[in-house]
Amino acid sequence: MPAKILVINGPNLNLLGIREPGIYGRKTLEEINEELRREAESQGVEIEFFQSNHEGEIVDKIHDCLNKVNIIIINAGAFTHYSIAIRDALQAVNIPAIEVHLSNIYKREEFRHKSVIADIAVGGIYGFGDLSYRLALEAALAFLQQGH
Amino acid sequence: MPAKILVINGPNLNLLGIREPGIYGRKTLEEINEELRREAESQGVEIEFFQSNHEGEIVDKIHDCLNKVNIIIINAGAFTHYSIAIRDALQAVNIPAIEVHLSNIYKREEFRHKSVIADIAVGGIYGFGDLSYRLALEAALAFLQQGH
Amino acid sequence: MPAKILVINGPNLNLLGIREPGIYGRKTLEEINEELRREAESQGVEIEFFQSNHEGEIVDKIHDCLNKVNIIIINAGAFTHYSIAIRDALQAVNIPAIEVHLSNIYKREEFRHKSVIADIAVGGIYGFGDLSYRLALEAALAFLQQGH
Amino acid sequence: MPAKILVINGPNLNLLGIREPGIYGRKTLEEINEELRREAESQGVEIEFFQSNHEGEIVDKIHDCLNKVNIIIINAGAFTHYSIAIRDALQAVNIPAIEVHLSNIYKREEFRHKSVIADIAVGGIYGFGDLSYRLALEAALAFLQQGH
Amino acid sequence: MPAKILVINGPNLNLLGIREPGIYGRKTLEEINEELRREAESQGVEIEFFQSNHEGEIVDKIHDCLNKVNIIIINAGAFTHYSIAIRDALQAVNIPAIEVHLSNIYKREEFRHKSVIADIAVGGIYGFGDLSYRLALEAALAFLQQGH
Amino acid sequence: MPAKILVINGPNLNLLGIREPGIYGRKTLEEINEELRREAESQGVEIEFFQSNHEGEIVDKIHDCLNKVNIIIINAGAFTHYSIAIRDALQAVNIPAIEVHLSNIYKREEFRHKSVIADIAVGGIYGFGDLSYRLALEAALAFLQQGH
Amino acid sequence: MPAKILVINGPNLNLLGIREPGIYGRKTLEEINEELRREAESQGVEIEFFQSNHEGEIVDKIHDCLNKVNIIIINAGAFTHYSIAIRDALQAVNIPAIEVHLSNIYKREEFRHKSVIADIAVGGIYGFGDLSYRLALEAALAFLQQGH
Amino acid sequence: MPAKILVINGPNLNLLGIREPGIYGRKTLEEINEELRREAESQGVEIEFFQSNHEGEIVDKIHDCLNKVNIIIINAGAFTHYSIAIRDALQAVNIPAIEVHLSNIYKREEFRHKSVIADIAVGGIYGFGDLSYRLALEAALAFLQQGH
Amino acid sequence: MPAKILVINGPNLNLLGIREPGIYGRKTLEEINEELRREAESQGVEIEFFQSNHEGEIVDKIHDCLNKVNIIIINAGAFTHYSIAIRDALQAVNIPAIEVHLSNIYKREEFRHKSVIADIAVGGIYGFGDLSYRLALEAALAFLQQGH
Amino acid sequence: MPAKILVINGPNLNLLGIREPGIYGRKTLEEINEELRREAESQGVEIEFFQSNHEGEIVDKIHDCLNKVNIIIINAGAFTHYSIAIRDALQAVNIPAIEVHLSNIYKREEFRHKSVIADIAVGGIYGFGDLSYRLALEAALAFLQQGH
Amino acid sequence: MPAKILVINGPNLNLLGIREPGIYGRKTLEEINEELRREAESQGVEIEFFQSNHEGEIVDKIHDCLNKVNIIIINAGAFTHYSIAIRDALQAVNIPAIEVHLSNIYKREEFRHKSVIADIAVGGIYGFGDLSYRLALEAALAFLQQGH
Amino acid sequence: MPAKILVINGPNLNLLGIREPGIYGRKTLEEINEELRREAESQGVEIEFFQSNHEGEIVDKIHDCLNKVNIIIINAGAFTHYSIAIRDALQAVNIPAIEVHLSNIYKREEFRHKSVIADIAVGGIYGFGDLSYRLALEAALAFLQQGH
Repeated sequence: MPAKILVINGPNLNLLGIREPGIYGRKTLEEINEELRREAESQGVEIEFFQSNHEGEIVDKIHDCLNKVNIIIINAGAFTHYSIAIRDALQAVNIPAIEVHLSNIYKREEFRHKSVIADIAVGGIYGFGDLSYRLALEAALAFLQQGH
Repeated sequence: MPAKILVINGPNLNLLGIREPGIYGRKTLEEINEELRREAESQGVEIEFFQSNHEGEIVDKIHDCLNKVNIIIINAGAFTHYSIAIRDALQAVNIPAIEVHLSNIYKREEFRHKSVIADIAVGGIYGFGDLSYRLALEAALAFLQQGH
Repeated sequence: MPAKILVINGPNLNLLGIREPGIYGRKTLEEINEELRREAESQGVEIEFFQSNHEGEIVDKIHDCLNKVNIIIINAGAFTHYSIAIRDALQAVNIPAIEVHLSNIYKREEFRHKSVIADIAVGGIYGFGDLSYRLALEAALAFLQQGH
Repeated sequence: MPAKILVINGPNLNLLGIREPGIYGRKTLEEINEELRREAESQGVEIEFFQSNHEGEIVDKIHDCLNKVNIIIINAGAFTHYSIAIRDALQAVNIPAIEVHLSNIYKREEFRHKSVIADIAVGGIYGFGDLSYRLALEAALAFLQQGH
Repeated sequence: MPAKILVINGPNLNLLGIREPGIYGRKTLEEINEELRREAESQGVEIEFFQSNHEGEIVDKIHDCLNKVNIIIINAGAFTHYSIAIRDALQAVNIPAIEVHLSNIYKREEFRHKSVIADIAVGGIYGFGDLSYRLALEAALAFLQQGH
Repeated sequence: MPAKILVINGPNLNLLGIREPGIYGRKTLEEINEELRREAESQGVEIEFFQSNHEGEIVDKIHDCLNKVNIIIINAGAFTHYSIAIRDALQAVNIPAIEVHLSNIYKREEFRHKSVIADIAVGGIYGFGDLSYRLALEAALAFLQQGH
Repeated sequence: MPAKILVINGPNLNLLGIREPGIYGRKTLEEINEELRREAESQGVEIEFFQSNHEGEIVDKIHDCLNKVNIIIINAGAFTHYSIAIRDALQAVNIPAIEVHLSNIYKREEFRHKSVIADIAVGGIYGFGDLSYRLALEAALAFLQQGH
Repeated sequence: MPAKILVINGPNLNLLGIREPGIYGRKTLEEINEELRREAESQGVEIEFFQSNHEGEIVDKIHDCLNKVNIIIINAGAFTHYSIAIRDALQAVNIPAIEVHLSNIYKREEFRHKSVIADIAVGGIYGFGDLSYRLALEAALAFLQQGH
Repeated sequence: MPAKILVINGPNLNLLGIREPGIYGRKTLEEINEELRREAESQGVEIEFFQSNHEGEIVDKIHDCLNKVNIIIINAGAFTHYSIAIRDALQAVNIPAIEVHLSNIYKREEFRHKSVIADIAVGGIYGFGDLSYRLALEAALAFLQQGH
Repeated sequence: MPAKILVINGPNLNLLGIREPGIYGRKTLEEINEELRREAESQGVEIEFFQSNHEGEIVDKIHDCLNKVNIIIINAGAFTHYSIAIRDALQAVNIPAIEVHLSNIYKREEFRHKSVIADIAVGGIYGFGDLSYRLALEAALAFLQQGH
Repeated sequence: MPAKILVINGPNLNLLGIREPGIYGRKTLEEINEELRREAESQGVEIEFFQSNHEGEIVDKIHDCLNKVNIIIINAGAFTHYSIAIRDALQAVNIPAIEVHLSNIYKREEFRHKSVIADIAVGGIYGFGDLSYRLALEAALAFLQQGH
Repeated sequence: MPAKILVINGPNLNLLGIREPGIYGRKTLEEINEELRREAESQGVEIEFFQSNHEGEIVDKIHDCLNKVNIIIINAGAFTHYSIAIRDALQAVNIPAIEVHLSNIYKREEFRHKSVIADIAVGGIYGFGDLSYRLALEAALAFLQQGH
C-alpha cells in the first residue's frame, strides 16, 4: 500500500488566486494542488487535499486520518493562531505534520507571529508563496523515505 | 441593479428577546431585522440577513458576498474577540464592513474590549441596543450614496 | 417530569480510549457515558450525551437546552481555552453548568491553565480521569436535590 | 422646556477642515455643527456646541450642564486617551454621554485604542467622518424620546 | 493496617458556618468533618482532620504524614495562592494530594485564580460548597482502591 | 510671621456635597474648608484654600507658594493619576506635601491605584471622607511643630 | 460596655526604636502604644495591643476579635504585601480595619507599593512616622462616634 | 519675509535658574532665550518664545503657528510624557518640531523615558543643559537652510 | 556571469555532527555544504559557504556580498535571537535572505521563538535537519529563476 | 569573644537526606551541620544551627542575633521566594547574610528564579549540593577575617 | 597636550552613503568624519575616528582611551540596543560619552526605542542626519571648555 | 593526565584593579589568576586562563575545550545577560560550567538579574569579590574529585 499524504488548507484559502493576487499570487488552490498531485504521484505516493472554513470539519478530517495517512501538510490559515482544537487533533492522531504558510507571517500583524501548532509540528516553511507547499511536499517525501 | 447590504449576526444573537431582556431588550432578532428591511427597502436598497452560531458558516457566507454585496453590517458576537478567520474573510472579499454591538462592550468583561475586526472595518457603533443596527444601516446607506 | 442532565464533550474527546491511553485512560467515551447513564437513571434522572468537534454545534445544542435541561456537565476540551461563544451560550440559556476535565490542566501547557468558562460555571472538577465525570454527575444530582 | 443636548469637541478639533482634509474631510467644525443644529431644532430639541483645547474648560463646561442638559455628545479628541478629569466630570454630573470619533481609532496608533471615557458612556460611534456626529445626534434624540 | 486519609484545612476555615454563611454555607468545619468521617469509616478507611492558621504547622503536619498517610485532601485557603512552603512539603513527602475549595475561585478576585499547589496535586474540585469535600473524599477512596 | 498651609483641591472636587453624596458625603467643599480654617487658626496657623479644574492653574498656584507656604495639603483628584506637571511643580518648589483622598482609592478602578504624586509626598491619608482632610491638617500642624 | 480598639503590629515592628532610627524614629513600639493608650482611655475607649512576627498568630488574634473588638488598626509590616491569610481573616470577622504605615511605602521598593489589605480596609495612613498611628486612632475614634 | 522659529517651553520651566540649580543650572529661562535670540537674529531669522504651565495654552499657541512659523523647538517638560493633545496639535499644523530636554531623561524615573512627541518630531537633543537649546537652534537653522 | 548564492552559518554550527548528534544529526557542516554545492552547481549557480562564531565577521561578510551575491541563505544560530547588527547588515545590502534552522525552534526554549531576522527575510524553513538547507537552496534557486 | 556564625535553614530542609535523595543528596541536615561545625570550630569560630518550617520563628531567631551573631548563612527554602518578613528581619538587625541553595534554582520552576533576599545579602551560592554550605562557610570566615 | 575626542561608529555605519541614501543621506562616513576633523582642529582639539562591525573591537578601543581621550562621541548602531559590553566599557573607563543617531529612532521599529547606553551617557542627539554628528561635536567642545 | 580547568573572563574584566576599585577591589585579574593557579597546582590540577572582550573568541575558546578541559569556570561579564552564543557553546561541548560574579548582580540594574547561562551551569557564586573565584575553584576541584 502506498504512503499517503494529506494536504489541509484552512479558512479563506479557497479564495487563493482571487483575493489579493499581489500578495498571494495568481494561482488558485486547485492549480497548486494539481502541481502537488503530479509531484507526489510521480514519487508513487498517494496524496489527498482538503480545504474547509470550518474548524470542526478540519478536526473531523484529521481524525479520519487515523491509520490511513502517513504525514499531514497543513496551512491552517487564521486557525494557526488560535485553534487549540486542531492542535489537539494533530496530537491525538499522532501523525507527523508540516506547517506551511504562503506569506511571511513575521512581516504581518503581531497576532500572526504566534502559531499554536508550531511546537507540535515536525517543522515549518513560510514566505515562499505556492513554492512553500512544494517544499513541504519535498520534506514530506523525504520524511516518508526515512521510513516514517 | 440595486445596491445590496448583508447583515450578519454571530453566535447567540438568535436568542435576542429571549435571553436577558433586561440587558439586550425585548425585541427578537426577527423584529430588528424587519425594521431594518423596511428602512432599506424604502431607500431602494436590497438587504439580506444571516445569523449563525458557526464560525465556518459565517466565513462561507462572507465569501458568497463576492460581487454580490456592497457593504456588510456585522455583529460578530463572541467571535468579535477571537475569530481571525472572519477578519480574514472580510479582508479577502474586500467589502466594506460596519461593526455593531448591542451593548457597550467597554462596560463588560475585559476580554470583550478587544475586537479582532475593528481595525479592518470602516467604523463601529456600540451600546445603543437595537438602535445600534439602525444607525449602522444609516451609515451603510450614506456610504452607498457616496458611490461605494 | 424527571430532571434532565446534559453531558457535553468538546473536540477530540470522541477519541477517548484510542488516543494516548497512558494519559487519558483506556475507557472510550461510550463506556464512560454508559456508566453515567446507569448512575443517573438509578436516581430517576434523565441524562443525555452530546459530543462534537464543532463549536457551532455545541452552541446550538446548548440553545436547545432551554426549558428542557436542568443542569449541564461540560468538558469543552480545547474550546475551554478560547470559545467565548460557548461561554455566552451557557450564560444566555442560564442553565447551571459544571466544568470537567480528565487531566489536571495545571500540569500541562500554560495556555491550558485559562478557562473562559470557569467563572460562569457552578464549579469544576479536574485531574481524576473518567472519575471526574462521575464526581460531576454526583455534584449535579446533589444540585438537583437542592431544588434547582 | 425643550430637552437640551450639548456637543463637546476636544483639542485640535477646531482645525477640522483645515488639517489633513484627506483624513478628516473638508467640512469645518462649524459646518458640522450647523447640520446638527438644523436636525436637532427640526425635532424641537435645543442644542449647544462647545469646543476647547483646555481640559479644565471642558470640565467646567460639563459642570455647567447640571440640571440644564439632558444628554452630552462628546468627541474628546486626544483627551479621550488620558483625561480622567473629564471622565470624572461626566460621572459627577450624571448626565448620559455618547462618545464620538471621526476616524476609526483602531486603525491608528496603539495608544488611541484606549478610551478612559468609553465604559461610562452610553455607547460610541467611530470611523464615519462627520456622519459619526449625525448618528450620535440620532442616538441622542432616540434616547430623549425614551424619556431620559 | 487500614489506609489513611488526612484532611487539611488552612487559615480562616475554622470560622466556617460563622463567617458569611451566605457564601460559605451554614455548616461548621466540625459538621463537615463528621460527615467525612462517617463516610470514610464506612469504607474501612481511617481519616484524620487538621486545621491551622499557621503555615508552619501545616508544613510540620505534612511532614508527619511520611509513611503514615496514603492521601491528603487539602483546602489550603489563602495559602493556596502563595505558600510555596506547603507546595514543597507536599512534594517532599511524595503523598498524593487532592485540592479542594468551597467556593468557585474563578468567580472571585484575580489573585485567587492562581494556585501554587494545583500542578503538583492529583486533581482539584471547587465551587460545590461542603459537597466539594465529599467529592474529594470519593476521589481519594477511588484512588486508594486503585492500589495507591 | 505665622506658618502657612495651602490646601489644594483638584478637578471635580468643587462638586462635593452635590455629586454622589452616598459616596462623598453631604458636606460641601466650603464646609470642609471652614472646619479646617477654624482648626488651623485656633493653632495660630494661616491657611489658604484653592480649587481648580485646570491643571495649569494648580501648577501656577504651587509656583506662587515659593517662600510663602510651609506645607501643602493636596487632593489632586483625577490629576493624581497622570499629572506629572503637578508632581514636577511640587518637587520644583520643594515644599512638603501631604496627599489626601476622600474615598479609599484601592476599592475603586485599577487606574486609581496609581498616584504619580505619592512618592514625592511626605505621606498620605485616604478613605475617611472629609475626616481625611482634618487628619492631614493635624499631620501638617505636627510637621510644622517639628520646625519645618 | 466601652468600645474596644485593637492595634495589630506585624513582623519586625517589635524592633522599633532599635532598628534604623534615622528612618523609623527613636520611639519604641511600647512608647508609641503608651501614647495611644492614653489618648484612647481619655476618650473612654478600651484599647489593646498585639505584635507578632508570626502570620498565624495574627490570624488567630483577628479571629479572637469576633464580638469583642469594634475596630482594628493594623500595620501588617511585610505581611502587607503578601498575606492573603490576614486579608481573609479581616474579611471573615467583618470588623472595620484601618491600615497604617510608618514610612511612605511609595518612596521604597516597588514590591512595597502593593498592599493586599488596602481594598478591604476603611482607609489608610502612611508616611508620618509614629504620628501615623495617632492619626489612625483619631480616625478610629471618629468611626466609633458615628455609631459603628 | 524672514523665516520664523518658535521656542515652546512647558510646565515648570519658568522656574529655571530658581529650582534645583545643581541639576538645571543657574541660568533663567529669560537668559537662555536671550542667547537664542541673539544667535537667531544674527542669522536673520525671527524667533519667538512661549512658556506656559497650561496644556491648552500650548495647544492654542501651536495652532497660532499655522502659516506663520517655519519650525518649532519644544521642551514640553512634564507634558512630554502624556500630552497627546500637544502631539496632535503639532501633527495638525504640520510644522517640523525639534524636541529638547535639559537633563538626560534616561538617567531619571522610568516614566520620563517615554515621550509621546518623539516619533512625530524631526529629532531630539537631551542632557546638555541649556546647551541643548542652542544645539536645537542650530539644527533648526540648518533645517531652514535646506529650504524647509 | 552566473548567479551566486552565499550560505552563512552562525555560532556553534561548526560543531555539527559532533555535538548532540541525536538532535542535530550526524552530518558535519562540510558534508551538508558539499551536498548543497553539488546541487547548486548542477543548476549552473555559484555557491559559497561561510561560518563564523563572530558576529562582526558575519556582518563584514554580508557587506562583502554587495554587488556580488544574489541571495543569502542564513542559519544565524544563536545570533538569530539578538543580533540586530546582522539584521541591519542584511537590510543595508538589500540582498534577499532565506532563514534556515535545523531544529524546530518552537519546540525549544521560549527565547528561541523570537527571530530578529525573520521579518526582513523572504521566508524561512525550520525543523527538517539538514534537509532544511536543501529546501532553502531550492527556494533560492526558484527565486533566482523568477529573475531576482 | 569568638566571632559567631548562625546557619538558618528554612521549610522542608529538615527532610534532607530523606526526600528525593537523587536531587538533594543523601546527607541529612545534621550531617551537613556537623561538617560545618568541625570546620568553623577548627577556625576558632562559634557556629549555631537553626531550622524551622515557621516563617515567624525564623524572624524571631534573626532578631535574637542582634549583638550576638556576626554573620548569617541562610537557605530560606521556599521562603526565599516570598518572605518579605525574613528580608526585613535581616535588614533590621543589619547583620551580613549569605544566601545558599542546594540546587540550581535556575534549572527549576520559574517562580524559584526570584529571591526576595538576594539584593540585601552579601552574595549567594547555589547548585553545589551540600558543598554550597561549605563554600558559604568559607565565604563567611573570609568575611570575618576582613574585620567584619 | 590638546584635548582629544574619539568618534566611534558601530556596525553597518561603514556603508553610509551607499545604503539607502534616501534615509541616511548621500554622505559617506569618510566625508562626515572629514567635516568633523576640520571643525575640531580649527578649535585646537585632536580628533580620532573608529568604526567597527565587531563589538569586541569597540570594547577594546574604548579601553585604549584610558588616559588618552577626554570625551567619546558614539553612534553604536545596532549595538545601541543590546551591547551591555559596550555600556560597561564606557562606564569602566569613566570617560564622558555623547550618544548620536542619524535617524529618529522613535520613528522606527519598537526595539530601536531602547538604548542600553542612554542612561550612562552625558546626553544624546538623534534624527538630524549627519548634522547629528556636528551637533555632538559642538556639545563635546563645549563640554571640554567647561574644564572636563 | 591531570584534570584541567579553564577559567574564562568576559568583557571589561581585563580592567580589574583599574576600574572602580571601590566596587571591584584593587586586585588585577592577573593577581587573581595567580592565586587560583597556585591553589589548583597545589592540588595537582592543570589550570588555564582566558579573557576576551570578543564574544566570538570566547565561543571559539570553548570549542577548543572539547576533550581537553574537564570543567569551566566562567565570569561572562556583560555577555552573561545576552550571549546565547556562549550559552550554546557551553551546551555544545557538554563540559560542566560554574558561573561566577564579583559583585552581587541583584544589587545592580534590573537587566543584570537575568543570566542566559545560569540554567545550563552546574551552579553559581556571586557577590564575594575575588573570593568568588576561589570558591568556584574549590567547587570545581570537588567536582573533579567526584570523578567528573
